[in-house]
Amino acid sequence: MSTADRTVVRGGLVVTAADEMHADVLIEGGRIAALAAHDSDTAAGWTAGTVIDATGKYVIPGGVDGHTHMQMPFGGTTASDTFETGTRAAAWGGTTTVVDFAIQGVGASLRAGLDAWHAKADAQCAIDYGFHMIVADVNDKTLAEMDTLVEEGVTSFKMFMAYPGVFYSDDGQILRAMQRASGNGGLVMMHAENGIAIDVLVQQALAAGKTDPRYHGEVRHALLEAEATHRAVQLARVAGSPLYVVHVSAEQAVAELAAARDLGLPVFGETCPQYLFLSTDNLAEPDFEGAKYVCSTPLRPREHQAALWRGLRTDDLQVVSTDHCPFCFSGQKEMGRGDFSKIPNGMPGVEHRMDLLHQAVVDGHITRRRWIDIACAAPARMFGLYPRKGTIAPGADADVVVYDPHAEQTLSASTHHMNVDYSAYEGRRLTGRVETVLSRGVPVIEQQAYVGRAGHGQYTPRGICQYL
Amino acid sequence: MSTADRTVVRGGLVVTAADEMHADVLIEGGRIAALAAHDSDTAAGWTAGTVIDATGKYVIPGGVDGHTHMQMPFGGTTASDTFETGTRAAAWGGTTTVVDFAIQGVGASLRAGLDAWHAKADAQCAIDYGFHMIVADVNDKTLAEMDTLVEEGVTSFKMFMAYPGVFYSDDGQILRAMQRASGNGGLVMMHAENGIAIDVLVQQALAAGKTDPRYHGEVRHALLEAEATHRAVQLARVAGSPLYVVHVSAEQAVAELAAARDLGLPVFGETCPQYLFLSTDNLAEPDFEGAKYVCSTPLRPREHQAALWRGLRTDDLQVVSTDHCPFCFSGQKEMGRGDFSKIPNGMPGVEHRMDLLHQAVVDGHITRRRWIDIACAAPARMFGLYPRKGTIAPGADADVVVYDPHAEQTLSASTHHMNVDYSAYEGRRLTGRVETVLSRGVPVIEQQAYVGRAGHGQYTPRGICQYL
Amino acid sequence: MSTADRTVVRGGLVVTAADEMHADVLIEGGRIAALAAHDSDTAAGWTAGTVIDATGKYVIPGGVDGHTHMQMPFGGTTASDTFETGTRAAAWGGTTTVVDFAIQGVGASLRAGLDAWHAKADAQCAIDYGFHMIVADVNDKTLAEMDTLVEEGVTSFKMFMAYPGVFYSDDGQILRAMQRASGNGGLVMMHAENGIAIDVLVQQALAAGKTDPRYHGEVRHALLEAEATHRAVQLARVAGSPLYVVHVSAEQAVAELAAARDLGLPVFGETCPQYLFLSTDNLAEPDFEGAKYVCSTPLRPREHQAALWRGLRTDDLQVVSTDHCPFCFSGQKEMGRGDFSKIPNGMPGVEHRMDLLHQAVVDGHITRRRWIDIACAAPARMFGLYPRKGTIAPGADADVVVYDPHAEQTLSASTHHMNVDYSAYEGRRLTGRVETVLSRGVPVIEQQAYVGRAGHGQYTPRGICQYL
Amino acid sequence: MSTADRTVVRGGLVVTAADEMHADVLIEGGRIAALAAHDSDTAAGWTAGTVIDATGKYVIPGGVDGHTHMQMPFGGTTASDTFETGTRAAAWGGTTTVVDFAIQGVGASLRAGLDAWHAKADAQCAIDYGFHMIVADVNDKTLAEMDTLVEEGVTSFKMFMAYPGVFYSDDGQILRAMQRASGNGGLVMMHAENGIAIDVLVQQALAAGKTDPRYHGEVRHALLEAEATHRAVQLARVAGSPLYVVHVSAEQAVAELAAARDLGLPVFGETCPQYLFLSTDNLAEPDFEGAKYVCSTPLRPREHQAALWRGLRTDDLQVVSTDHCPFCFSGQKEMGRGDFSKIPNGMPGVEHRMDLLHQAVVDGHITRRRWIDIACAAPARMFGLYPRKGTIAPGADADVVVYDPHAEQTLSASTHHMNVDYSAYEGRRLTGRVETVLSRGVPVIEQQAYVGRAGHGQYTPRGICQYL
Ligand SMILES: [Zn+2]
Ligand SMILES: [Zn+2]
Ligand SMILES: [Zn+2]
Ligand SMILES: [Zn+2]
Ligand SMILES: [Zn+2]
Ligand SMILES: [Zn+2]
Ligand SMILES: [Zn+2]
Ligand SMILES: [Zn+2]
Repeated sequence: MSTADRTVVRGGLVVTAADEMHADVLIEGGRIAALAAHDSDTAAGWTAGTVIDATGKYVIPGGVDGHTHMQMPFGGTTASDTFETGTRAAAWGGTTTVVDFAIQGVGASLRAGLDAWHAKADAQCAIDYGFHMIVADVNDKTLAEMDTLVEEGVTSFKMFMAYPGVFYSDDGQILRAMQRASGNGGLVMMHAENGIAIDVLVQQALAAGKTDPRYHGEVRHALLEAEATHRAVQLARVAGSPLYVVHVSAEQAVAELAAARDLGLPVFGETCPQYLFLSTDNLAEPDFEGAKYVCSTPLRPREHQAALWRGLRTDDLQVVSTDHCPFCFSGQKEMGRGDFSKIPNGMPGVEHRMDLLHQAVVDGHITRRRWIDIACAAPARMFGLYPRKGTIAPGADADVVVYDPHAEQTLSASTHHMNVDYSAYEGRRLTGRVETVLSRGVPVIEQQAYVGRAGHGQYTPRGICQYL
Repeated sequence: MSTADRTVVRGGLVVTAADEMHADVLIEGGRIAALAAHDSDTAAGWTAGTVIDATGKYVIPGGVDGHTHMQMPFGGTTASDTFETGTRAAAWGGTTTVVDFAIQGVGASLRAGLDAWHAKADAQCAIDYGFHMIVADVNDKTLAEMDTLVEEGVTSFKMFMAYPGVFYSDDGQILRAMQRASGNGGLVMMHAENGIAIDVLVQQALAAGKTDPRYHGEVRHALLEAEATHRAVQLARVAGSPLYVVHVSAEQAVAELAAARDLGLPVFGETCPQYLFLSTDNLAEPDFEGAKYVCSTPLRPREHQAALWRGLRTDDLQVVSTDHCPFCFSGQKEMGRGDFSKIPNGMPGVEHRMDLLHQAVVDGHITRRRWIDIACAAPARMFGLYPRKGTIAPGADADVVVYDPHAEQTLSASTHHMNVDYSAYEGRRLTGRVETVLSRGVPVIEQQAYVGRAGHGQYTPRGICQYL
Repeated sequence: MSTADRTVVRGGLVVTAADEMHADVLIEGGRIAALAAHDSDTAAGWTAGTVIDATGKYVIPGGVDGHTHMQMPFGGTTASDTFETGTRAAAWGGTTTVVDFAIQGVGASLRAGLDAWHAKADAQCAIDYGFHMIVADVNDKTLAEMDTLVEEGVTSFKMFMAYPGVFYSDDGQILRAMQRASGNGGLVMMHAENGIAIDVLVQQALAAGKTDPRYHGEVRHALLEAEATHRAVQLARVAGSPLYVVHVSAEQAVAELAAARDLGLPVFGETCPQYLFLSTDNLAEPDFEGAKYVCSTPLRPREHQAALWRGLRTDDLQVVSTDHCPFCFSGQKEMGRGDFSKIPNGMPGVEHRMDLLHQAVVDGHITRRRWIDIACAAPARMFGLYPRKGTIAPGADADVVVYDPHAEQTLSASTHHMNVDYSAYEGRRLTGRVETVLSRGVPVIEQQAYVGRAGHGQYTPRGICQYL
Repeated sequence: MSTADRTVVRGGLVVTAADEMHADVLIEGGRIAALAAHDSDTAAGWTAGTVIDATGKYVIPGGVDGHTHMQMPFGGTTASDTFETGTRAAAWGGTTTVVDFAIQGVGASLRAGLDAWHAKADAQCAIDYGFHMIVADVNDKTLAEMDTLVEEGVTSFKMFMAYPGVFYSDDGQILRAMQRASGNGGLVMMHAENGIAIDVLVQQALAAGKTDPRYHGEVRHALLEAEATHRAVQLARVAGSPLYVVHVSAEQAVAELAAARDLGLPVFGETCPQYLFLSTDNLAEPDFEGAKYVCSTPLRPREHQAALWRGLRTDDLQVVSTDHCPFCFSGQKEMGRGDFSKIPNGMPGVEHRMDLLHQAVVDGHITRRRWIDIACAAPARMFGLYPRKGTIAPGADADVVVYDPHAEQTLSASTHHMNVDYSAYEGRRLTGRVETVLSRGVPVIEQQAYVGRAGHGQYTPRGICQYL
């Protein structure tokens, strides 16, 4: 390999989930070739076409966002970020891999859904991507398709205990899918809310004239998240399968996960920045502004945040994803004026995950290494992308971020790169900012300018969950 | 640095607590200089005076044994391994750092105790070593000395809820030491057994003619380990200090740790190979053979092992140390014929920890990475030795083991290198064996021959616990 | 009142849930008029037309069986005891009140179901009776009817999380009924098994050729009982209502109840003699004999019994009912040869509850007073019959049993009085036997002869649960 | 028996722990002879020398206060109520039995201590009394004496995990006493606070100039009550003995009891009105007024009260006693000005327990029957006095209170009858008041006048705990 094709990142502090190293990083052919101590003869001897000075900066693996919904149809509208705009925004925020959700239509095959999502993403993405499969219609054919998909690299299957009539699966369908997953290495991801009970409360609230966004939070009761979490765990035990619970927001749901893990069960949990940094206070913002924060599971009272941070520290929660699913306030969120149940569920966030979690390091909630773990390494392991993604080690993809831990920034819709007309964090000041982003060695963000291109990002088949 | 002074370990699978890398390892000046992918140009370009072929082998960090008692006086005799023989045996087994326990005499200063242990170890050791301090006499002076010791690199303090009249501290003394530790960064390590209650049961057993070794296990009731563990946790909460519980053996004690950790408390636990692989069945061996297995906490019924393995998997237990404290059967263990309470407490084990835990990988109890975590990385972090010790990364000490995962061996007193006349694992067949051991880049074991020397090992001051 | 109309029970030990009294009992006009110490002047002065000598015997309240299914249609057949035969058998066993389940037909009103059951029972019963209402079809009309029924004395409503397509209610329907109950004083009784998941396992078992009765126990997984119990508790918390879980059989379900009660929630639990005395060993009896023991929840492995006894002692379980629902082996149970799912679910038991629980006193599982509590007083309180039923106190109905604690008997289909061709306890020897039974002062069993009559028993409207 | 010697209480609602009866009560020879329904012929026929009209009133068993310290020496002074004044005050408040604590001197025998307390109480008491024994010095002789005392009717033994150097027993002594109790039917009562740790905190507080009464509450940390409670439970498990924890005040201690009881262990708990109605707000009252509320365990922050009420409802706490131990503010409490550790520990309360707990009925914390249970029946059962004491049933002692549930009163030192110069409840208004009190049929309080006499009260030997 010629020197020109090589890149060296010099002088930074390499931070992975496990180690902090004063090391230079050598990149050859899109992969990490070597790490060497700053002061070593071997590092001194490296020549490269591109030399990035990371002195005083962190050199971290690119973020892995295991939960996004680009251009997803929902409730008669479509999430406002395309794969192009959404993955570009992700790159701006230091994320170099997303795993998005392909959707099975009811009555259709998994294959058809997957193909449709491939078509949407193909040649559009700024960064690498993979797919989970949303299973909306469990039957003998679907179950057989699950085996095939696992072999092809779609190794995780999301199911919903909420949204009756849309994505909802009943407990028998869930059990059957879990049984199948227990045999083929697949991981069942669960939206754990008792949607059947919640829908009763929704109708009662609306009938009582409680139509504002904040009632979205009230009817989606924390106990009904905890209930569904417990139920999913028990079904997984009966099936002998692992379980990954998405977007955990309630303290009581964390307690269910902790109890399951104390038993040694292969049960995992994800939370999202919105649950860590926002609360029902936001849902109650006047003039329908609360609609900006409508997502499910809903934001919880501020008191729940401590349990989420603790769960992240104790490893009862392993992953922070964004559940990025943006809808513009104007024209989209507004569909729910006068009826909160018509507000499209979802929030923008793919751009800010790495920064918000770095702020948590600054604030003392988590350590620097735990930041990289929950944002990069753990999702990569969870979804079978490790060690290509999620770490900086010889042989890994050169998805590398140079991160300035001292820079300051202010989040705002006027400056963000997501295709959505508001920021859920408008005006929030953060310490830390992405400086440079490489995807397989190729610059995507350079000195805070986007230098990537749609189509650089490749579809990445995944192996099975590495926590099993 | 000249090529001759460099070492390259080629072709192996580098396994750390976090990563598995197909990488060559370059060693310069006793430290890891670089890791590079096997097939990288940079690795290909490395020249070195020493090249170790690790093809088909694991390249792992040297083990860190956080709990040994070389030549420790106990009950009128002295542990049979000196620092020379004990650290040599450790090296044979792939351990490159031990943290031994210096003892404060009652009425004496910490300093005097520490000096005495330095004198014993100085110029004797085959591998690097550090010290914990056993605090046997809490008073204003001792407390002040704790601050000094932390600054000097003795950052952990062991206390005993057992052994009244010897090492025992009462709850007030423990509380005071914990309070001090909460201020100076020290870590209180606890022998958690209710020794006051146990001594009543000992006297009752002896009075009833129950003098055989197996009664040692009966009187040291599992509930009295759990009780003391709970008490230590509560005292630590009152003091606002972290807590590390040594040699956890009872299922109920693991449950106490799990409960504390679910609350997010900085509570840690260690177990030892003897609790994972041996049981009260051994204590009940006839002809006084049970005496070989007398240690405290005692071996438990076989049913407890599952909880220990589960605790290691769920991270409710973080560390596996040996509590190596050998006494010969002949002349030492025999002091307790007719009175189990006179059997010196302790077992040999420093040589076999890495191998026994690799066997656990083979048996499916833990993953390969978890093996390195509990045996190398976690103890190094826990005791402030990381990242010099416990990992293979640029900048780390070149404490490197080439491990053959397919070799078979049989443990036996006739072949082991510890200075003790029996093996607790006599005849046990294991898969996996140490091939080569480097300590700071210097060969200590080479192709299963000892090539080290007494005095190579250096005293290593420690930083504070890195889990805080 | 003339002397002739009075009855005195002399010389016995009166045992209630709270007290043991050496007292004579005076009955006037069908009610307990007075209790007086044996040696008191006032007792000595009592004259009565009927004097019953209870010397050396217990004088206890008649049993209250809160869960029976006389002549219930199920799976194409009908439970073999009519109200006439079933209540007569109850009386033989010392039970003087039953609360049976009226059933709402799907699409029909509660009223229609209740009327149908009144028609079946009217003028047939040997002892007093009341009704619970099985709610099989929740809708606005049903909910409104619940209020009316509570006012009329049908104050408890059974719902099913099992039996999809038959009695099953989904979580939204359950929530709505619970909400209604929280407002009108009603008590929701829950059959807590995840029937949706179980039906998947049933189909899988049958498809795999597992058709014997013992598979009935395997597919109705203990975790799926625990899951449903937890879910019912959470739904009740959301609704702000009390909850009574019927026929608890799994250790894990008891744990869910205990956890709920530790939180101070108004959650109650019932078990049945079959779960206390029988096990999956019975279900596995050869030659299809296991079918005799098919009921739901199913019998559990013998290890679960200890948890049930403990729950009865700790008051985590409050009531022992029979769930009496007999089907003859010949012609009825046999419908399920070759397909366990076609075996009618239910077992005979109304006659033996008091005796089996007295045996538990003899065996040391419970105290004498706890026997009366779980069999008489607690069900009477739970279902709003106290203090008319369930105790011996001035003002109470004179439902009185003279019980010989020393008599021995052997249970057998050849001697029992239930209209069913087998005994679940064939050949079991018990210590203790009913000698005399009065219902509202009128002899029904006298010296082990039936002297009652169909139609003596009266319908008894009930108040609301007295534990709230 | 002549009519003149008989008493009838007519027209009241008889309330026991189990029943509510509209019944007249006939008393002959100091015992309850009979209960009869108001409208029964037999009641109508009763003639009596004394007829008490209880129309519109409750007729309840006299209270049983299981924890008093009359004229107890403590910290260089003596509790200000003698057996004469204290039992008279108890009677005023509807309590007809107290169980006081005889104290073993260190180095002396149990017998000597018991004799001393007999001498103090003999011929002084207005109501019946018994003794527990405080064991301050466990040795072979003491243990043997325990057997004798149980046989004589002193069946409970209090031990202290607090007060080192005074009453303190170490865990070995506690274990030995528990072992003895497990064999002789005795009940170990535990003051559960880690006094060794607390004394360190006391010294630290004083050294820091924290001398006010409120620091008494801070140093006696809730976690140190929970810790000791857990430890006592584990010691009792090892010994195979029951355990009764006195004066539980911390939420965390209730949780320990609940956990033990969920396991089915014979573990019991008592709380006191001061923990239910007062809080650290009182301890913080200015001008040293907080000293009035100094007792151990200490008052807790108000948030703990909910857990205590819940524990009383769930039966995780069984008994409410007063721990009556009055010291005058003037001259006694004042001994601790400038040093909270010198404030005599204890509060007056024997007079107000029944009324405060009736207020809890009015406030909805407990039911009417639970009031009688925790104040009368349960302590009588717990301490082997049932059914002579604690209930109204034929054969029981005629300790009867006519209670006016509608009367109002205001508590005040200016009106109370305890020999102490302040009221802990000064100015508190209560609904409900004692009207008439009979002790073994003899009037002690009549229409709110004291008509009793010192010496009427008899020493009452006790049987063993009836919950075992
Ligand atoms: Zn979702
Ligand atoms: Zn989502
Ligand atoms: Zn130890
Ligand atoms: Zn040790
Ligand atoms: Zn049922
Ligand atoms: Zn039933
Ligand atoms: Zn006390
Ligand atoms: Zn006291």
